[in-house]
Amino acid sequence: MKRIIDVTELALRDAHQSLIATRLGIDDMIGACEELDNAGYWSIECWGGATYDACIRFLNEDPWQRLRTFKKLMPKTPLQMLLRGQNLLGYRHYQDEVVDRFVEKCAENGIDVFRIFDALNDLRNVERSVAAVKRCGKHAQGAISYTVSPIHSTGVFVEQAKRLVDMGCDSICIKDMAALIKPQAAYDLVKGIKDACGENTRVHLHVHATTGVTLVSLFRAVEAGVDCVDTAVSSMSLGPGHNPTESFVEMLEGTGYETRLDLDRVLKVKEHFAQILPRYREFLSAVTGVETEIFKSQIPGGMLSNMESQLKQQGAGDRLHEVLEEIPIVRKDTGYVPLVTPTSQIVGTQAVLNILMGRYKVLTGEFADLMLGYYGAAPGERNPEVIELARAHANKGMIDCRPADLLEPEWAKLRAEALPLKGCNGTDEDVLTYAMFPKVAPGFFATRDEGPRNLGRDPETGALETEVPQGHAGKITGPVTYTVTLSGQQHKVTVSPYGK
Amino acid sequence: MKRIIDVTELALRDAHQSLIATRLGIDDMIGACEELDNAGYWSIECWGGATYDACIRFLNEDPWQRLRTFKKLMPKTPLQMLLRGQNLLGYRHYQDEVVDRFVEKCAENGIDVFRIFDALNDLRNVERSVAAVKRCGKHAQGAISYTVSPIHSTGVFVEQAKRLVDMGCDSICIKDMAALIKPQAAYDLVKGIKDACGENTRVHLHVHATTGVTLVSLFRAVEAGVDCVDTAVSSMSLGPGHNPTESFVEMLEGTGYETRLDLDRVLKVKEHFAQILPRYREFLSAVTGVETEIFKSQIPGGMLSNMESQLKQQGAGDRLHEVLEEIPIVRKDTGYVPLVTPTSQIVGTQAVLNILMGRYKVLTGEFADLMLGYYGAAPGERNPEVIELARAHANKGMIDCRPADLLEPEWAKLRAEALPLKGCNGTDEDVLTYAMFPKVAPGFFATRDEGPRNLGRDPETGALETEVPQGHAGKITGPVTYTVTLSGQQHKVTVSPYGK
Repeated sequence: MKRIIDVTELALRDAHQSLIATRLGIDDMIGACEELDNAGYWSIECWGGATYDACIRFLNEDPWQRLRTFKKLMPKTPLQMLLRGQNLLGYRHYQDEVVDRFVEKCAENGIDVFRIFDALNDLRNVERSVAAVKRCGKHAQGAISYTVSPIHSTGVFVEQAKRLVDMGCDSICIKDMAALIKPQAAYDLVKGIKDACGENTRVHLHVHATTGVTLVSLFRAVEAGVDCVDTAVSSMSLGPGHNPTESFVEMLEGTGYETRLDLDRVLKVKEHFAQILPRYREFLSAVTGVETEIFKSQIPGGMLSNMESQLKQQGAGDRLHEVLEEIPIVRKDTGYVPLVTPTSQIVGTQAVLNILMGRYKVLTGEFADLMLGYYGAAPGERNPEVIELARAHANKGMIDCRPADLLEPEWAKLRAEALPLKGCNGTDEDVLTYAMFPKVAPGFFATRDEGPRNLGRDPETGALETEVPQGHAGKITGPVTYTVTLSGQQHKVTVSPYGK
Repeated sequence: MKRIIDVTELALRDAHQSLIATRLGIDDMIGACEELDNAGYWSIECWGGATYDACIRFLNEDPWQRLRTFKKLMPKTPLQMLLRGQNLLGYRHYQDEVVDRFVEKCAENGIDVFRIFDALNDLRNVERSVAAVKRCGKHAQGAISYTVSPIHSTGVFVEQAKRLVDMGCDSICIKDMAALIKPQAAYDLVKGIKDACGENTRVHLHVHATTGVTLVSLFRAVEAGVDCVDTAVSSMSLGPGHNPTESFVEMLEGTGYETRLDLDRVLKVKEHFAQILPRYREFLSAVTGVETEIFKSQIPGGMLSNMESQLKQQGAGDRLHEVLEEIPIVRKDTGYVPLVTPTSQIVGTQAVLNILMGRYKVLTGEFADLMLGYYGAAPGERNPEVIELARAHANKGMIDCRPADLLEPEWAKLRAEALPLKGCNGTDEDVLTYAMFPKVAPGFFATRDEGPRNLGRDPETGALETEVPQGHAGKITGPVTYTVTLSGQQHKVTVSPYGK
């Protein structure tokens, strides 16, 4: 009798978020949906995280419409989203009523499984959304933001899992966004949670592939009793993304474990995205192989290239190494926060400033807020000297309550601001879009009628589908050198008359 | 007390053979040698396989000089080569005296560890070279060509390992060139060999990464008692290559196993090749991700792209799928030979012919020889009908003796042919070069004085270092479309005046 290991497919959300900066358009997903829905996945992650932001910011696509499309095309398999607790999908805390309404609308439009996490693992920040999900009769998955530090141990995470179960979560997810969890640690943590919370507590393991070790971690997690793992179809895998679904299935042969997946269907999904991905080459992560240096800096792969370009803009492209050394110091001062949205950006940006301007000579407002408790309780003790600097910078005191408790009711105000916007359709969904992205939403509402914008480009010509060049060969008689921008990269190219 | 797992680094041989068609020139290796030599590897594979052929065919580089350079730059760490038994590094069987002389010269010029295999696992084909290595006082490693078929079982391979030990081999290598060995199979085989041959029999495991599962297989092999694994530094890893060295080291944390590697030095080697690799982009394997379809076809990643271009040349680029279905049929008819040089080429080419011309309507001479025993005994029973076709085609009978027993002494003849060649320096090394590559050697001897040719190109301009274009910007007034060849690939590119 083989034990079944369930699988969550990430191709439609985290995979393209990690590999091509969340730019995948709905047109390029639709073709894979039927196979995905029939392949036997436990769930398909397809919404939340950065996809909402990318939809309205880059793709002129209504994220709610995207969700409804998924629900229609994938009626059999539970649809899953990633939710940042009290942050929802935005970058600040929201008042509880906004959280409730958002969760209700997600459930109504098609989400079945809500994976809910807080960057600081402050569980007060996930309580409200977990309760809202339960009220909607959907699956609430409580996620632990995995990190490695002197104060994080298996015991700490197991304790957190117990509290999530007590809170009413239907399952626990170990969320390892920077590929830090090594095989033994994965085994110990899964086993620890099972031992503490009972065999019947579902444990899911979400890992990225960036450090190269995490397929082994998945294997050990299976041996420890994990119920479900997250993978991405091979053509949308590896690098800063995830482990390949097909490899996970194949590696179980002869082990006493197996998945329910129909590999022939998975291979069709692979083929679909293998055709699509080259069209998004300009967004492709610079990290394509394995980066074990992440074990030191803990910076997720996707963020590394952001940071590099931040430094280059400041004319300090050669100082990345110093920044990577600074990050663990800043992180220690925060009380060892896990690095995941938004803490990864806050800590990373502060480390850049420390290197460019001198340590803590300049603070960002977000970093001061983090030090002062406005994102929640820190995992460990914060550096008191840096707290004092933050207090002086922000001209406000520390808090130790749940941050959202300080917020006034805001739904009516958000609604009043959103409704008059040109193109706003008056739905709660639109109000929520405005609530989360007040600067981007007005522009999106105004252009929504033009329909989704597909950012894929012809891999040969680099042209968007709508702007295929109508060129003709110019007359040249000998080799000529041009600066040519191809897929967003400048090349010095020498051109000769065709046929010579 | 942790158990030490040894590591063989593949960057200088199999890694670039798998990733960039063996084109890495000595200039681009020298800079990594000091760190490699001090990093703590059990051995550094740096010679043999296709490197000898590529040196004289593409790089105008004397392979023996390359070996001496390695020995000088890496005096501490044993240097390792891959030897195809009675085939040496060529594509036919050699008479025993040639084998003896070749092994002696390898030992004399710097090889410490000889990994010796036969594509058919016919151990009569490796006996002579094993004996020669032992006579030189060097390490003879007997390799098993790993494959999966109805007649190959753990038991069959364990039996082979026992015979290799009895033959005098100092260690056993499981050589999995197509990434077929799954975790449970790796565990069973390593444990089987240890149980049958004794704990003190060293077992090495060579795996490629192509199917994505084999780092897990390495992990399970470690648990089963493997002594040494083969990996490649991360910047020269994955795709049709191997698992990243750094990931192997990191994944052992907390497991009770560890390597002797100095990770800081390994990361310097990583950095070195990360700078180098983009210069060889035009040779980069088309396979960059994971390909689990290999479990069916068993075609090594490197060969897939060869086969594709073979088909395209015949105007049958759309028939790859049929060929991949044909290969297992042809392989069955040969008695389930493992697919590795030269059998992978022989079976692959015959499968292509079967699809293009009708099954076995045309046979290659090599395929007929394979069916008639001229490469050695087949692992299983050959198809008698195809044997008859081969007999008719080749107009000769079957043999069941060791193929090299049919060869007359040939050293004197080879020497007499080689010495008069223009540029031949009269050494046994040159005679051996001629013996293995009689068509290529004369040209190489004639141009050797010009020194090594580096095939790396400027990633921006695509120019070889010696031919950086002296172009000037041609005057164009609007967008113009050209056919541009960039890094060997044709692109349709639209060019606008700079700054517009």
